[in-house]
Amino acid sequence: MDDPRLYADDLTVGRRFPLGRHEVTEDAIREFAQEWDPLPFHVDADAAQDTHFGGLVASGVHTLAISQRLVAEALTLRAAVLAGRGVTRGRWLRPVRPGTVVTGWVEVIAQQLRDDGRGTVLWRQVLTDAGGAVVAEIDVDVLLERRPAGG
Amino acid sequence: MDDPRLYADDLTVGRRFPLGRHEVTEDAIREFAQEWDPLPFHVDADAAQDTHFGGLVASGVHTLAISQRLVAEALTLRAAVLAGRGVTRGRWLRPVRPGTVVTGWVEVIAQQLRDDGRGTVLWRQVLTDAGGAVVAEIDVDVLLERRPAGG
Repeated sequence: MDDPRLYADDLTVGRRFPLGRHEVTEDAIREFAQEWDPLPFHVDADAAQDTHFGGLVASGVHTLAISQRLVAEALTLRAAVLAGRGVTRGRWLRPVRPGTVVTGWVEVIAQQLRDDGRGTVLWRQVLTDAGGAVVAEIDVDVLLERRPAGG
Repeated sequence: MDDPRLYADDLTVGRRFPLGRHEVTEDAIREFAQEWDPLPFHVDADAAQDTHFGGLVASGVHTLAISQRLVAEALTLRAAVLAGRGVTRGRWLRPVRPGTVVTGWVEVIAQQLRDDGRGTVLWRQVLTDAGGAVVAEIDVDVLLERRPAGG
């Protein structure tokens, strides 16, 4: 029977996986930020009016967490991931305001197969709002198993 | 009276701020990952035994969230931050296992002052365990206000 898991070999450059959808509520923005990033424009809707953003926005860490969740459902839970090694670049391009529905895709941008049974893949997590505007791009460097011989 | 807030002007290259401490419990690792990054080595201590890590480890996003919290307390809550622009590089260097006490420092590595009343600062969030071993380094690009004239 074919092994349905995705190995480093399967994640060729250009391969793309669509993400599901995640609505970001005002309560969720405040709750996440109260625990992890309690700046006024993340936790206090009134104080946020007078800031650069003119209203409440999600913490960048919250956006990254949403991205990680959507990518888990779309890709990593069925991939032979050994470890995440890092973020080579993360850019928050547009504020994520209450009511934003986050979706997008993940696309492989580099693949290196090694002869020790492992490979590294760099993939770009592109988050958009429901209108298609890109709100964040996060490049993640991942170590995976290679497909077993005969697999 | 002197304005006690930290502006872009104040964050000169090499300036360093010590972080507080945050203990990472097994329950916290599982709870965070169940919501945001539900891979076996983050949520299931038994399954984690047979993985690359040989046991439960914190999600990289969890480590980043802890970093953001410690940096908020040490620096951003008293800085004139307009917006975080992105992560120019994040590296997870050692697994964060249950019981790890995360601490470290944040250090300014680049500063650009502009004539529009704003400045950008790149700072490195260096997370260590209680023994001083570096577990993660996260470089963050931040837009801040410049110190008001006469301030």
